[in-house]
Formats: sequence, C-alpha cells, structure tokens
Amino acid sequence: MEIGKQVKVGIIMGSQSDWETMQHAVETLEKLGVGHETRVVSAHRTPDLLFEYCAGARDRGLEVIIAGAGGAAHLPGMAAAKTPLPVLGVPVQSRALNGMDSLLSIAQMPAGVPVGTLAIGRAGAINAALLAAAMLANHDDDIRQALDTFRAEQTERVLANPDPRP
Amino acid sequence: MEIGKQVKVGIIMGSQSDWETMQHAVETLEKLGVGHETRVVSAHRTPDLLFEYCAGARDRGLEVIIAGAGGAAHLPGMAAAKTPLPVLGVPVQSRALNGMDSLLSIAQMPAGVPVGTLAIGRAGAINAALLAAAMLANHDDDIRQALDTFRAEQTERVLANPDPRP
Amino acid sequence: MEIGKQVKVGIIMGSQSDWETMQHAVETLEKLGVGHETRVVSAHRTPDLLFEYCAGARDRGLEVIIAGAGGAAHLPGMAAAKTPLPVLGVPVQSRALNGMDSLLSIAQMPAGVPVGTLAIGRAGAINAALLAAAMLANHDDDIRQALDTFRAEQTERVLANPDPRP
Amino acid sequence: MEIGKQVKVGIIMGSQSDWETMQHAVETLEKLGVGHETRVVSAHRTPDLLFEYCAGARDRGLEVIIAGAGGAAHLPGMAAAKTPLPVLGVPVQSRALNGMDSLLSIAQMPAGVPVGTLAIGRAGAINAALLAAAMLANHDDDIRQALDTFRAEQTERVLANPDPRP
Amino acid sequence: MEIGKQVKVGIIMGSQSDWETMQHAVETLEKLGVGHETRVVSAHRTPDLLFEYCAGARDRGLEVIIAGAGGAAHLPGMAAAKTPLPVLGVPVQSRALNGMDSLLSIAQMPAGVPVGTLAIGRAGAINAALLAAAMLANHDDDIRQALDTFRAEQTERVLANPDPRP
Amino acid sequence: MEIGKQVKVGIIMGSQSDWETMQHAVETLEKLGVGHETRVVSAHRTPDLLFEYCAGARDRGLEVIIAGAGGAAHLPGMAAAKTPLPVLGVPVQSRALNGMDSLLSIAQMPAGVPVGTLAIGRAGAINAALLAAAMLANHDDDIRQALDTFRAEQTERVLANPDPRP
Amino acid sequence: MEIGKQVKVGIIMGSQSDWETMQHAVETLEKLGVGHETRVVSAHRTPDLLFEYCAGARDRGLEVIIAGAGGAAHLPGMAAAKTPLPVLGVPVQSRALNGMDSLLSIAQMPAGVPVGTLAIGRAGAINAALLAAAMLANHDDDIRQALDTFRAEQTERVLANPDPRP
Amino acid sequence: MEIGKQVKVGIIMGSQSDWETMQHAVETLEKLGVGHETRVVSAHRTPDLLFEYCAGARDRGLEVIIAGAGGAAHLPGMAAAKTPLPVLGVPVQSRALNGMDSLLSIAQMPAGVPVGTLAIGRAGAINAALLAAAMLANHDDDIRQALDTFRAEQTERVLANPDPRP
Repeated sequence: MEIGKQVKVGIIMGSQSDWETMQHAVETLEKLGVGHETRVVSAHRTPDLLFEYCAGARDRGLEVIIAGAGGAAHLPGMAAAKTPLPVLGVPVQSRALNGMDSLLSIAQMPAGVPVGTLAIGRAGAINAALLAAAMLANHDDDIRQALDTFRAEQTERVLANPDPRP
Repeated sequence: MEIGKQVKVGIIMGSQSDWETMQHAVETLEKLGVGHETRVVSAHRTPDLLFEYCAGARDRGLEVIIAGAGGAAHLPGMAAAKTPLPVLGVPVQSRALNGMDSLLSIAQMPAGVPVGTLAIGRAGAINAALLAAAMLANHDDDIRQALDTFRAEQTERVLANPDPRP
Repeated sequence: MEIGKQVKVGIIMGSQSDWETMQHAVETLEKLGVGHETRVVSAHRTPDLLFEYCAGARDRGLEVIIAGAGGAAHLPGMAAAKTPLPVLGVPVQSRALNGMDSLLSIAQMPAGVPVGTLAIGRAGAINAALLAAAMLANHDDDIRQALDTFRAEQTERVLANPDPRP
Repeated sequence: MEIGKQVKVGIIMGSQSDWETMQHAVETLEKLGVGHETRVVSAHRTPDLLFEYCAGARDRGLEVIIAGAGGAAHLPGMAAAKTPLPVLGVPVQSRALNGMDSLLSIAQMPAGVPVGTLAIGRAGAINAALLAAAMLANHDDDIRQALDTFRAEQTERVLANPDPRP
Repeated sequence: MEIGKQVKVGIIMGSQSDWETMQHAVETLEKLGVGHETRVVSAHRTPDLLFEYCAGARDRGLEVIIAGAGGAAHLPGMAAAKTPLPVLGVPVQSRALNGMDSLLSIAQMPAGVPVGTLAIGRAGAINAALLAAAMLANHDDDIRQALDTFRAEQTERVLANPDPRP
Repeated sequence: MEIGKQVKVGIIMGSQSDWETMQHAVETLEKLGVGHETRVVSAHRTPDLLFEYCAGARDRGLEVIIAGAGGAAHLPGMAAAKTPLPVLGVPVQSRALNGMDSLLSIAQMPAGVPVGTLAIGRAGAINAALLAAAMLANHDDDIRQALDTFRAEQTERVLANPDPRP
Repeated sequence: MEIGKQVKVGIIMGSQSDWETMQHAVETLEKLGVGHETRVVSAHRTPDLLFEYCAGARDRGLEVIIAGAGGAAHLPGMAAAKTPLPVLGVPVQSRALNGMDSLLSIAQMPAGVPVGTLAIGRAGAINAALLAAAMLANHDDDIRQALDTFRAEQTERVLANPDPRP
Repeated sequence: MEIGKQVKVGIIMGSQSDWETMQHAVETLEKLGVGHETRVVSAHRTPDLLFEYCAGARDRGLEVIIAGAGGAAHLPGMAAAKTPLPVLGVPVQSRALNGMDSLLSIAQMPAGVPVGTLAIGRAGAINAALLAAAMLANHDDDIRQALDTFRAEQTERVLANPDPRP
C-alpha cells in the first residue's frame, strides 16, 4: 500500500494458501490507489481475532471488508455478522469441488446479514476490489477518476484488438 | 418511497413476476429510510432502456443499483457493464433449476465488471437492500443509525426468544 | 427434558423455523433418556451469544453439541471453532437449493476444526441424536442400554413386517 | 475467409482466450465454404460495440450470429436481445465450474429472446458452425452440398474403421 | 395450422405428456403464421418412425425440426443424426431432476451432429419456435415481418408497464 | 405372483415407503408372467437379513435381484457384494435431493462388484423389471414372447396416437 | 476373443476414443472366457449401422449388448430401442462435465426401454463385463465357475493385504 | 501406533488406494497419542470381514470407527449398520465426480443408523481423527490435553503469521 494513504479496505483471508487468489484483489486496489490492509484471519482457527478485527473495523476507519475463503468458507459471513460495514466475499477455488462449496457457503446467507459475493477465484478477487472501489468512488473523486480510467482502458484494449487470433 | 427523500438506490428487475421477490428489497429500504426508485427493465426485451437507465444512473444521483433476475439472469451483469456504480444482483428462484442458474449467471462475472451477488430469493432481496444501505451508511449518519438499529433489533429478537419451540 | 437428568448434549439451531427439523433430535434424545438442552443461537444475528455458549460448554458439563442450520449454515462450523467438544451438524433443508448448500457448508470444513455432518433434514436430526448417544454410551451404561434397545427394536420392526405392501 | 465470399455468419467471442475454442467454428465454416467474419466483442467490457454490431447485423447481410463465451457468458443472450437474426451460443469451458455456468447462462434464456445453445467447448464450436450451415443450406445449394458431403464423410470414417483398437 | 400454409417446421415430441410444454411452440408458430406440423414420435418406443420421419423431412419441404423430450431425451439428437436440417431441442422438465438431465442430454452432443438447445420447459418451447422463425425469416418476408412485430410488441409491453407492483 | 410359477426374480426394498415406487416393478413382472417374490430388507436396519437373503439367493433358484433404495441407498450394492447373481438397482426419489444421491450411491460402484442402475423412480422400477425379463428371456421362450408383445404394444400405442393434443 | 468361442456379448462404443475406457470390459470378458465381439458404432454418425447391428443382434446369437458412450451418450439407449436383448450402458468420462452428462443421459431412460447403467469410466466398463457374465452364468456353468473364481480371488487379495500402507 | 497404548479407534478403508487420504487420519491420531489400528476392509469385496470387524469392535474395546471410502462409498454406512459405536465417514475424492458421489453416499444415511461425515479428502481425514479424539477427550485427560494443545498451536500459527504474502 502506498504510504500515507488512508486505509479504507480491509482484505482478510482464511489462510496463506488463499494469497494466490487474493493477491489479485490487492493488486487491483493498488492500481486504483485505494488504501488497504491485508491479513490472515481464520474464522475457524482464530475466531476471536476475526471478531475483534471486524468489531473494530468501522471505528478504525475502514469502509469495506473483502474476505476470501474456500470450502465451508465461513469467513465472509462471520465478518458480516460482526461489522455493520459492507462485506464482500470471494469464493476461493476449493480442491475437490472447484469452489462450488465456497460459492454456496458465501452467497446463501440468511436474511439480515448480507455478503456481496463475487465470482470463484481470480476474477472474483479482482472484482471484489473493483466493487469496493466503486462504493468508495461515490465519495472520493480520486478513486472515481481511477476507476473510470481503469474501465475505459479495459474497453480500449478490447476495441484495439478486434481479431481473436493470437 | 417517502416524498422528498433523495433517490440513492435504483431497483430494477426483469419482469413483473420478479416483484414477489424484489418487494422485499423495497420494503427493507423503506424501513431504513433509504431513498429509492423501482422499475421493470428487461435485459433481453428492453436492452436499450437498460443501457439508457444505467448509463445515466450516476449523473441522476444514484449511488447503488440493485438488479433482480432469474434464469439466464443477465440484468445485473449488463447493468454493471454500463455503469460505474456498484451493482448488486439478486438471483430470483427459477422454475426448473431453483435459482441455481440465476446464481451462477449473476455471480460468475468475468474480471473487470463486478456484481455483488446475494442469496437466491427473498433473503437475497432483503440483503441487497441491507448491503446497499451499509455502503451508503459510510457517508450518511441517518442510514448508519437506521442500520445499526435494524441489526440491534434483529439480534434482540433472537435473544428474547431463546426457546425454539413454537 | 426429564428433570434431574444431567445435561450432556446442547442442541442449538439458527432460528425458530429450524425447530420443525431439529425437534426430531430432541425427541430422539428423550426416547434414549439423554440429558439435553435446546436453544436458538444464530451465528449471524447473535454471534456473541454463539461464542459465549460454545466457549463455556465444556465447563458446564456438556459433552456434545448438535447444531442445525440451513443455507450458508455457519452455525455448526463456528460452534466447532469455539469449543473443543465434538460438534455434530444437521443441514436443514433450504428453500431454493433443498439443503445442498447447507450440506456443503457444514461438511466441507477445513482441516483442524471438525464437524460431524449428518443427512439433510429430519433423518439427519434423528441421527445426530443417535450419534451423540453413541458417543456418550461408551461411558454411560444406561445410554448404552437404551441405544441397544432402540436399535434392536428398529431391526425388529423391519423383520416383523417383511411385506412391503401397505 | 475466402475472398469474394459473401459474409453470412458473424462469429463473436468475449475475449481472445476464447479463440482456442471458437477457432473450431471458424475452421468448420471454412471447410464448408461458408462466408464468415470473426471479432472479439465483450458483452461486459464493450457493451456498446456489442449493441452496434448486433443492431446492424441483418442490414449488413448476416444471416446467423455465433457467440462464444464462458462463465456468466452474457454475450449470446445480449446479442439475441439486439438482433432478430438467429443466434447460436457456444459455452466456453470455464476454469472453476467446467462450463456448467456458461451452459446454464446461455441456455436458460427467458421466453421471447431465443439462443440456440450448443455443447460446452470444442464440440459446441464445431456444431455451431454446422448448425449455422444447416440453416443456410435451406437456401444455398453449395452449402447444402458441402454439408451433405461433410456428413457423408464423417459417417464413412466410422464405417471404415470398425475396430476400436488403436 | 392455417390451411394452405406450406409446412416448414416439424414439431415432434416423445410422448403426449410433453404436450403441456410443447404446445407453447405450436402457439408461437401460429402467432407468427409459420406453417408447421406436430406429431408424437418416440426415440425409444418408435425408433423406426423417428428415422423415417427425419430421413424424409427435407424432401417433404421441412426446413427446421423442433424436438421436445425429457429425461434421457434422445429425440432431438437422434433426429439430428438422421436429417441434415437444423434441429432445435427443447428439454422438457423431468420429474426427479427438474430437466437438468434433459438439458445435458440434449446440449452435450458430440462434434459433427448439432442440436440447438433451448431453455428447460415452456420458455424453451416458445423460444424454439422463435428461433425457427428467425431462421426462416432470412428468406421469408412475411415471417420476418411477423417476427419483428412480435419482438416490438414484447418490448412495448415492458415499456408500457414500468412499475413492477402488480 | 401367479401360483405355481417358479420364482426367478427377488425384489427387495429398504422400507415400506419404497413400495410406492417399487410396486411398478412388481406389476411389470406380473404383466410379463415372470415369477417373483418381494420383501422389505434394510441394508442398515437388517444387515444380517440382507446378507442371508443374498447369500442364499442363487441356491434358492433366483436368477436376478432387483433392489430399490433411496438416499445413501446401500441396498443394491451390498446385495451385489453378497450374491453372484445379477443385481439391478432402482434409485428411489429422495426427499431433499430428488434421488440424485440415490442415483450416485447406486451407480458409482467400484470395479469388481456390479449393479445395473435404472432411472430414478417409477420409470426405473418398470425398467428394472423389463431388464430382468430381458435377461431371463434368453432362456425362457414364454418370457421372450411376453416381452416381445409388451414392446410391440407400446410401440403400437404411440403409432396409434400420433397427435399430441390431449 | 478366443477362437471357437460362441459370441454372446456385443460391445459397441461411439468412437475410437472410448477404447481407453471400454478395453477394460473386453479384458474382463476375456479373463472370464466369455465370447464377445467389439466394434465402433456411433449413434449420431452411423445411426443406420446402429439400428442394423441391434435389430439383428438376437438372431445372431448375442445375449447381451454393452454400449459405452460419453456426453449426450445416446448409444446405449438407442441400442435398447432396437433390440429386446438386455443392454448395459457405460458412461464414458466426458471432458467438460466429468461424465455426469454421460451418466444422466444413460441412466434416465423412460419407462419401457431399459438400460442397466454402470459407473462412470473404467470401473463401469469392468462391471458391465461382470454383470453381463453374471447374466450368462445362470445358464452357463463355465462362466459361472469363472465368475465365482474371479470374485473369490478379488476377496482373497483384500484379505491377504490387510495393511493399507503401500 | 505407540506400543502399549490401548486401541480406541479403528480406521478402516475400502482399498489401499485410500491410504493417500486416510494416512492423514492416522498421523493426526498419532500426534494426539490416541491408540488406534488400521486395516483395509472392503464393503463390496469383503463384506463378511466388514461385518465381523464391526460386530466385534465394541467388545474389543474400540470406542470409535473411522471409515474412508470413495464413489458409492458404502463402507461407513455398513459399518454403522453393524456396530453401536460412533462411526465417522471420510469421503475419498473420487476420480470422475471429485468426491461428490462419496460425500452424498456417506452423508445421506437414513434415520436410525448415523454416520458423522467429514469433508472430502485430506481435510476430512484429519478432522475425523480430531473428532474421534474430541469424543474420547470427554473421558481421557491425556487426549483432552493433547487436543487442547493441538488447537492452541494451530491458532498460534495463524496469529504468528498475519501476513498472507508467502
């Protein structure tokens, strides 16, 4: 994260093995100049840390939490249970069931405690960062500008390469 | 919607048959005092309207779009393609596949254009409203207060009724 | 619960709507004379209560926790995160996905924090009680006897009615 | 494409990574001597291009559109929303869910806006070309002849090699 | 079918129980003024009839075949094996698996013999008719006109009823 | 069963609730004049009876065993483990998962111990009887004749009612 | 096949690529000394050959047909439509959907035309051979003896190696 | 297993190929100092051994049985049918269906005969050992202490490595 930038987005993940996926969220926030922090927080192995992290998140100035997890993937939902901040969940592709378990565990939250779920894997991690930025952009002109540029550039890249042949 | 409230959330849905599900998003926003508007916009039958609605949404002052759709459920993703605003998608329970098709069509967006996906059906509609409110609450003390009250009350209702027997 | 019986099994469930399923666990424990208690504890709406309930469960003399939940169904896994006691999970049949989401969310726990998962719905609730009783039976002759009788009787009922015609 | 051949089939795909699959549609049309064009058009990153491409397709003389996409796979359905021409959709095999998401997103279109869906992956790409050719063959003797020959030859290849051993 | 209209579309289905679904294809063709015929042809119970029907379809002047079937749903694929005409398949919603079996059996055809698959159930039946009409419209101005009107009207109906409340 | 007919087919099912499905196997064998017997045998509640029944089946003159079961559905596979006779399995439609669990549990047998699996539910029960009859027909002219008639009649019924309208 | 052995089992498969799976059926029949023949017969590319092969199978002395196919996998079901002989189906593991499509297409046959379905892939091929042998064993002492020996040996191999460590 | 330790847990698995998964259960029990034994017992190839093993398990002093199996995966359920001891099932990841078949076959047991199901694969094997230990810990201070240490250490490892970057 760029020094001096205010931390607005907290990115948590269940284990170091999730970094391969979640690094794409970090990289995307960096491209957009969004202040963020990352840490490993396990819903099942460090439940108290999770509760502490989330309970204090709003007061520490965070505005969004991005949580990545695979399999039973309780991290995003339990984060949402402990913070009033918007929580975005990234289903990490699991070994046996390819992330279908992660997706259902994150998306199928009961009424009252929402998690905004993104796609399984890398695309979901990138999009969690973009969605977090879009939320912040409503009240932050720099992020709005960065996001508009990001989207304009990705449109340009397609338009500039109309031929699918490699 | 209460008169005089600024419209911050646009709720769109693919057809009138989605109202049974999406009314729960509307009711929840009303409880929280969040200004909103609703309309039927079909990705497939009125694609031009969808593009027009979404392309102008930010300039009209909207800060979030909630889109509900079932089956192929392209509405949320195509809304996200046309607006930089955060888009939340509600998978409506489809007739044959119980909303599994809706869920996958909404959640599995490619990198670059995010949709925050909620649960299938009524719970997802309520939670889309709550997540939209949580986004707005970062810069709106009334909504923050309303949301905190909403969550405190739902916690209280569980604590007040510890016995599961009806 | 019979008065004076020591409470060995704690049955928790995410909401009163789970009672229709979980009552079968209660009835089965009652048939077997196993001391138990029941209460509504929601992982998402009352996370602090869940943590408090589970953190103190062993010291209060509980030996097993049975947790029933549907959809994202985080209750059993989060209970297991907060207690060293054996936790059994009952996937409640969910509205849209018939409990497949509940099953995966409960069964696919990561290494380190186990939940013993039973079948979706009523059969799972009955079997959670039977499995809890089987655990206790290793050190409780009354329960062992009751369980042996229960199983002998269910075998007898099949043997006594060999003709499938109603 | 052979020079001088009238373009009857437009093949579009969401990104260059879809070429590995969609090249088989191109090759098949070439074998059959069907005039075609290909280009990358992304429903999510270039929605305006998609609309423009499809809205003008009939007037430019196209008779069929083949669209390949993976994951949320909105391209075929949105193409169908903007052109009265027949649209055929090829579900590209996605990374996490093996194309099941692509298949459902393409096939489960609502009443009113049809997409003819083919198999996931290479077989689907080949068959989209064959189905497009079959449509054209009703009014084009050269294509009809080429298609009859194609099918006769594939039958002959099986009959000529009755022994499954390699 | 209107008398005197040339039969261009053959609609076949595996059993009379499929009529509830397939009638929507018939009604849609009638609305569009497309000449058609319908009959029960079972791939499994009347395989010879199926072969005879399909082998002679082109010579009898048919230009498209629509086949509806549920479960193993071999009818569309076997029709496609016996005719060079374009074949469209409608997965009928099956009793146990809700049409997921029908959808996969119809869509997952091997390279060489295409079937254009529509959605499960009523929407698929309507869309098979619309897709057949779109094919024919390339060389039939009446059908083109009827189809354009059909689509314009369905767009109008959405635009005329923007309020989702019933 | 007709008196005096030699019992060739043993039909077993896990509980009386399976009768609604399995009666169709019985009725079909009766139509074909195939000697059979039926009884409730539960793999889980009466494992010893299952072993005894299957171990002695060949010596008692049975030539095929048909086993119907739902959910975990171990009955057909365990029957096959204890008899060298051909075993046919009928997946009974389960409450939560519609028989998908039953189907996989019966079909996915490991190499070495085969079960011939039929469709989920009523169709599977009828077809188990027809497949058993087809096996017996190779050495029983009466059954061969009855089966040929059965199939000819079902073909005739389709041919005699070509119009799908009810 | 051993020379001079009467051919009782016909093994067919949709393409040469199925040999990798279906060779295990051939090898198993060879171990058991069961007379058999193999050939490539494609339901979709050589439908007439399939019909001819199956229509004449009983008169040529075959007693069972084993058909292996992947994806839409119509071969076993269409074989069963054209022969009164027992037909066993082997779902070949498909590329995208791992054979789930093959399994459903083969297993979910409608009432009236049965296919006995085995497991996906190699295990299913072996078991199709074993099940065919079990059918024949009812009237062939050599096969019965060979099958009893096969099963006794596989039991012995497990008993002789009780330690799972490699 | 440490010499002199009383055997409390029996670990069985369907074949030597399951060792790759089930060794993690063995290793975990060894870490915790829980007396155990392992052996290959196949439900389908050695059903009599399975019955004998399970019928005598309680009298030999076992208190828990852990059974691992893949595919149809009948081992855990049939073990539970023959012993009143608690049985834990580990779904081994199957080749074609990634263990979804194993999971359903183990979890979906009927009311009356419970199996506590763990996650698919390695995580499930580890957790079966941990759950068995948790059961024993209620009456064994050494195991309780070892389990508390195990869990404290895994929590510590997460807390000591908060940075997800490798």
